[in-house]
Amino acid sequence: MDLFEKIASNRGPLGSHSHYAHGYFTFPKLEGEIKPRMIFRGKEVLTWSLNNYLGLANHPEVRRVDGESAMEWGMGTPMGARIMSGNSNLHEQLEAELADFVKKPDALLLNFGYQGIVSIIDAVVNRHDVIVYDAESHACIIDGVRLHQGKRFVYPHNDMESLEKQLQRATRMTAETGGGILVITEGVFGMSGNQGNLRDVVALKEKYQFRLLVDDAHGFGTMGATGAGAGEEQGVQDGIDLYFSTFAKSMASIGAFVAGPESVIEYLRYNMRSQIFAKSLPMPLVVGAMKRLELLRTQPELKENLWTVVRALQSGLREKGFNIGTTQSPVTPVFLSGEIPDATQITFDLRENHGIFCSIVVYPVVPKGVIMLRLIPTAVHTLEDVRLTITAFEAVAEKLNKGLYSKTTASVQA
Amino acid sequence: MDLFEKIASNRGPLGSHSHYAHGYFTFPKLEGEIKPRMIFRGKEVLTWSLNNYLGLANHPEVRRVDGESAMEWGMGTPMGARIMSGNSNLHEQLEAELADFVKKPDALLLNFGYQGIVSIIDAVVNRHDVIVYDAESHACIIDGVRLHQGKRFVYPHNDMESLEKQLQRATRMTAETGGGILVITEGVFGMSGNQGNLRDVVALKEKYQFRLLVDDAHGFGTMGATGAGAGEEQGVQDGIDLYFSTFAKSMASIGAFVAGPESVIEYLRYNMRSQIFAKSLPMPLVVGAMKRLELLRTQPELKENLWTVVRALQSGLREKGFNIGTTQSPVTPVFLSGEIPDATQITFDLRENHGIFCSIVVYPVVPKGVIMLRLIPTAVHTLEDVRLTITAFEAVAEKLNKGLYSKTTASVQA
Repeated sequence: MDLFEKIASNRGPLGSHSHYAHGYFTFPKLEGEIKPRMIFRGKEVLTWSLNNYLGLANHPEVRRVDGESAMEWGMGTPMGARIMSGNSNLHEQLEAELADFVKKPDALLLNFGYQGIVSIIDAVVNRHDVIVYDAESHACIIDGVRLHQGKRFVYPHNDMESLEKQLQRATRMTAETGGGILVITEGVFGMSGNQGNLRDVVALKEKYQFRLLVDDAHGFGTMGATGAGAGEEQGVQDGIDLYFSTFAKSMASIGAFVAGPESVIEYLRYNMRSQIFAKSLPMPLVVGAMKRLELLRTQPELKENLWTVVRALQSGLREKGFNIGTTQSPVTPVFLSGEIPDATQITFDLRENHGIFCSIVVYPVVPKGVIMLRLIPTAVHTLEDVRLTITAFEAVAEKLNKGLYSKTTASVQA
Repeated sequence: MDLFEKIASNRGPLGSHSHYAHGYFTFPKLEGEIKPRMIFRGKEVLTWSLNNYLGLANHPEVRRVDGESAMEWGMGTPMGARIMSGNSNLHEQLEAELADFVKKPDALLLNFGYQGIVSIIDAVVNRHDVIVYDAESHACIIDGVRLHQGKRFVYPHNDMESLEKQLQRATRMTAETGGGILVITEGVFGMSGNQGNLRDVVALKEKYQFRLLVDDAHGFGTMGATGAGAGEEQGVQDGIDLYFSTFAKSMASIGAFVAGPESVIEYLRYNMRSQIFAKSLPMPLVVGAMKRLELLRTQPELKENLWTVVRALQSGLREKGFNIGTTQSPVTPVFLSGEIPDATQITFDLRENHGIFCSIVVYPVVPKGVIMLRLIPTAVHTLEDVRLTITAFEAVAEKLNKGLYSKTTASVQA
């Protein structure tokens, strides 16, 4: 069969909605500066869709440094991969500062988070090793695991009993192959808001020999006394062998890093395919990340503001009877059961009649039959924003309960 | 075995050299603006290491727009993946301009080239399909192929007889599975400088049914009458079904795109994991790419200058008896046979005594026993730069032939 004919007849789980969703439910355009009030289709909306946890995207100091560093360096420098021609003192300085911030001996800067963690996983295991990972791990972890030629055992999300069983299997298996065990989970799961059970995972090290890689994309900067993430929050940062975070959330940028023991970071520096065969992080992003990290260190009020908003939003929604699942982080899902047409009507009503913009998440990101509206509070939202939003959600819920929404899919011409 | 113990005892093919190479042969720091004269360890060197083919990294218009767009937008916007919250009119405008430039109906902007092509490959094939690919394909293609759960057949670099045999095997196999065939090669191979035999590959479409994906990272902007790449150069752009290029070479930035038929691009927009689950390309990089593309379109003299330098360098080296292989592009390898200590002595001599900085490439990027010094000419090099360089290479070759280099590995304290 012709490959392109196959594609024409199978648009994929998200693509099959594009005929009505594109430009509104998918690929929407939020215009204006990154802050709670933005423009969607010409109207101001109160936005809860952006992982701008600490409000840094539009922080005046960040904006100043982003602009000045691009003026100074341009976006083209350095050129080439770090190992060939793309290294600089500033890249190394940022690595030292990141390592210090997350309390690890060394760190490696990565040119992009997604391909970064894929290649970390690929570099640290070989066919004799076994990977054990949480079933709700982010797509980038799954792609890294997919590259693995050895055995991979998955455990249901945060199910410690199952994890222990998988560790037993993995221990038997590696006794035969001579390989090692890599456990992979997340600090904060970006959809449910659950933290990974890091304390329990680390406790299993007393019984089993494994190394632990944690993707803390949503925890970095938002969790723990100093913002060092979910490991710090749970008091087990030392038990995380490889700590990974992207800059795409609280740092409001792109790029990423991995931190751990010097010898392992040195190994990764020379063996990660997406890094030795692709361009270094551009200098303005390096300089911009240093400024953002400085604000994480020196302005704890950003994290405090974030949590004030988080607590108000989550307790307010719970009080009104909304199912926000088991979140233990700023990520605030609102779970509704229903089919996609219901979800589109609700989202449409929120956006058009209440001026509330939140993202709608459907299968395959969440299971079939589940609709998730995901709210991401930030340090720059206000308690008035929270109040308005809860009022809007109440109105929507009442309408839903009374069966007043049309059963057809909302369709909007872009 | 403990994973980290394994790493401690096996540093990997490149990492095993780090004790003497780091900071000099590997991870060198080239300082100052991106141009032929840069600073290496405090001394000015004539640099041939950067894929800045058209000299855009330091072009005043590019520098101005990079700075101004970062001032206007910051590096944080848009946030989120394109499909969730990271879309913009400018992203779509750039896509239209890129499609137009490479003469394809539509294009999709990618947040990074490496993970971009990995996910293109992953998205267009399923386990029933067969991938047939050139053996010297870049690491990012190989990683994409590694994700494939169906059959993959490799053919020796540019070996059309073998490709035809693999297509026959693939045709028999897909007759059973009901799958399709994807052929993957490059427009210009970044190490040898060879062009992929696109004309011959496309001619095979008359006998076999397959789709062709071409990674033209080094050909985009440098090859063809309008700079549309190796397909245009060979008169077979229409035979390329999916045309991919990074912005990391002639565009002197990061990001990438893929161009092809509207329905396939639409499918990719909704099905590429590294794009639907990772952050959108930041706005200053989008605006910067538009300015670069405008210069590709409107300043053909950049490409003419490049080729003037390329022809002078390659013919000059050939006249002096250097083996520059079979390059058909600006990439200019100089192949030496010898072991790594020889390569280090030559590179050291070039840098320290002749002020010539070029990259040294060893196994696993090239086969064992081969040393490659790779020269990348650009539009902003001069014929005087070429003359100086050829003179230096002659001196080095004479010294090598006379056995005057020490047989020990050059070691330099960073």
